[in-house]
Amino acid sequence: MLGWMTERVLPNKWPLAPHVHYLEASIIREILKFSSQPGVISFAGGLPSPQLFPIDLLKKVAGDVLEQYGAASVQYSLSRGIIPLRELLAERATAAGTPTTPDNLLVTSGSQQGIELLARAFIDPGDYVLTENPTYLGALQAFNYYQARYVTVEMDEKGMLVDQMEDRIKQYNPKLIYTVSNFQNPTGISLSEDRRIRLCELAARYNIPVVDDNPYGEIQFAGKQLPTVKSFGADEVITLKTFSKTLTPGLRIGWMNGPKWIINQFEKVKQCADLHTSTFGQYLAYEFVKQGLLEPHVEKIKADYRAKRDRMLKKMEETFPEGITWTTPDGGMFLWVKLPEEVSAKELFPKAVEQKVAYVPGQPFYPHGEGQNTLRLNFSNATLEEIDEGIARLGKLFAETIG
Amino acid sequence: MLGWMTERVLPNKWPLAPHVHYLEASIIREILKFSSQPGVISFAGGLPSPQLFPIDLLKKVAGDVLEQYGAASVQYSLSRGIIPLRELLAERATAAGTPTTPDNLLVTSGSQQGIELLARAFIDPGDYVLTENPTYLGALQAFNYYQARYVTVEMDEKGMLVDQMEDRIKQYNPKLIYTVSNFQNPTGISLSEDRRIRLCELAARYNIPVVDDNPYGEIQFAGKQLPTVKSFGADEVITLKTFSKTLTPGLRIGWMNGPKWIINQFEKVKQCADLHTSTFGQYLAYEFVKQGLLEPHVEKIKADYRAKRDRMLKKMEETFPEGITWTTPDGGMFLWVKLPEEVSAKELFPKAVEQKVAYVPGQPFYPHGEGQNTLRLNFSNATLEEIDEGIARLGKLFAETIG
Repeated sequence: MLGWMTERVLPNKWPLAPHVHYLEASIIREILKFSSQPGVISFAGGLPSPQLFPIDLLKKVAGDVLEQYGAASVQYSLSRGIIPLRELLAERATAAGTPTTPDNLLVTSGSQQGIELLARAFIDPGDYVLTENPTYLGALQAFNYYQARYVTVEMDEKGMLVDQMEDRIKQYNPKLIYTVSNFQNPTGISLSEDRRIRLCELAARYNIPVVDDNPYGEIQFAGKQLPTVKSFGADEVITLKTFSKTLTPGLRIGWMNGPKWIINQFEKVKQCADLHTSTFGQYLAYEFVKQGLLEPHVEKIKADYRAKRDRMLKKMEETFPEGITWTTPDGGMFLWVKLPEEVSAKELFPKAVEQKVAYVPGQPFYPHGEGQNTLRLNFSNATLEEIDEGIARLGKLFAETIG
Repeated sequence: MLGWMTERVLPNKWPLAPHVHYLEASIIREILKFSSQPGVISFAGGLPSPQLFPIDLLKKVAGDVLEQYGAASVQYSLSRGIIPLRELLAERATAAGTPTTPDNLLVTSGSQQGIELLARAFIDPGDYVLTENPTYLGALQAFNYYQARYVTVEMDEKGMLVDQMEDRIKQYNPKLIYTVSNFQNPTGISLSEDRRIRLCELAARYNIPVVDDNPYGEIQFAGKQLPTVKSFGADEVITLKTFSKTLTPGLRIGWMNGPKWIINQFEKVKQCADLHTSTFGQYLAYEFVKQGLLEPHVEKIKADYRAKRDRMLKKMEETFPEGITWTTPDGGMFLWVKLPEEVSAKELFPKAVEQKVAYVPGQPFYPHGEGQNTLRLNFSNATLEEIDEGIARLGKLFAETIG
């Protein structure tokens, strides 16, 4: 499947359950080893900008939480998540157009746990998951663990070609439809409004749950804001959200918004998995939002990422040779580059590292391993100066390679 | 199996993977609903004493962490756990007699995640797990999810009757041996030194991993300190540890100590499951230990729990009628009561709640559902006054029932 730069570790001493053998090392982790070498300007990772983390505010809020909530903020708590946070998130989702009660919500240890809970609930070995092509690598890892197979739908600048979907649903009967609807990782593309509507119609007709993994929705700095996928299919859509891109990733606070009956099931799986997500982390996120600190902070992130995206696009225009195309995302942290068909981004990677610049080759994001001429660039983590210099290095390498 | 006071929620709309159907609601959660009624003195939960939580110290340390480590303390971090914490934990384990390197350690979101990772790595449907009888309910839930079966070994005041074990290993070929070696939940009993040695001999001879779930080891307030199980079988034993009982449970910081090859495997499962445990929580725990704050805090906990255990035992002596026996734990948070054979602790439970006192009936802790005349009492969470009054109420009820 992924089959590239992976390591298959065989059991050594004790017989492990068969699914564990399907684990492969994360490609991104391998890439990051190279890209963290000294002097390398890295567009490879998926890190939010650490310069923007609200350290002073977090310090104040951490103190406030411990003073105000005391022992309750560090005691065992509900598997479903602390009530004040779920109430607040439900209010905010409702205000944003998705009628939500606290019973629709399960707090998770980051969105990744949401994906994992969905994978284990729905996927038996050999079951199909329908995904965008390419799609988020962390989701593929979670689905691979449960030995999923994939049916993929191609994308254009408006996201998944939903018109391709019905035939594939009929043919493969997928257990889940997985989409990253806003500023997708890896492409930066968003699903258009008419396609959101059509997606939900198909999901309802064929009774297939849609997982809308939406970590980047708040980080929109250009274009028209689109209604959420869930606003077109409340009964069909399970949304995954997180504070990782708005507050900080290291708190590991995400949440799942779905029909009550399925949230009831997931609550029990969550209890087996880790009892509950960090009580203190939940109170920190809750208090940060409640004190009105999140929105102004997100505005700062948007301004910063917008400037970085603009700088990256400008420098790409200036330095990338003919024959290379790329996306222009309205938000999020990534853009997507297509080299000429015959150029392999994977084979070029060691040369890029020699030139002290790194990206992620696109192939691992394709469930069936296409896209050897694609690559992903992250624009949130580097500084403007690093973007100038790093893109210039890439442009020179591409010009030499293609020219 | 557990089959008592449980709720089996059937899938409603979408076909879930079969294992999800095996989920049952936690018995303890149901019990806690009753025991949290106003005026009820509860010995039912498993909560550390919230009065002892070091709120002021945590506030100081949270500030120190954010000032000293800044963005790194809230950024994405390694699936295996942050390096300074693993280095510190390895040093401490080594100093305590178990040679350990950071590569032997995986930081988990509480011990429960350690149990879950082990269950999913080792258990296929129908596989056997060897456990003490009774054993920790949260472990049974995690193992049940993977459709484990159980082979049990009876206990006396020195823990598992290890001499029973060899025949059962030969007959059932268990995939794992699961023990709570110190001040076991639910009984408060510790495994004696000679039985630890014999357990590790058997594990080595039959090549079966031993999981030593050891959350209470530090909370020892009487008796002789025993060498860890792992000190007798470094290659066979995977130890699960946590800050939940020493610092606070709500941070959800635990760790697993095992042979490197298996920790390498678990690191990858962990990455699929939730990427990594809260970076901030890990730094908080690290800094709390590094500043030398943990040991004096644990001394306070020990003094408090010792006083509470003594008070509970004294009051039980005074008020419990003939025919009832109980354990005298040297540490931890629980003691175990045996009523006369013909008395059902489960049937008595509603009457206890009428008398405004609660415990946990013992039957759910038995994988095969024996122990209907047993119950668990928690002595860490109530105050001394509540212990006096609550045990008096229980004594009266027992006297009426048995008399």
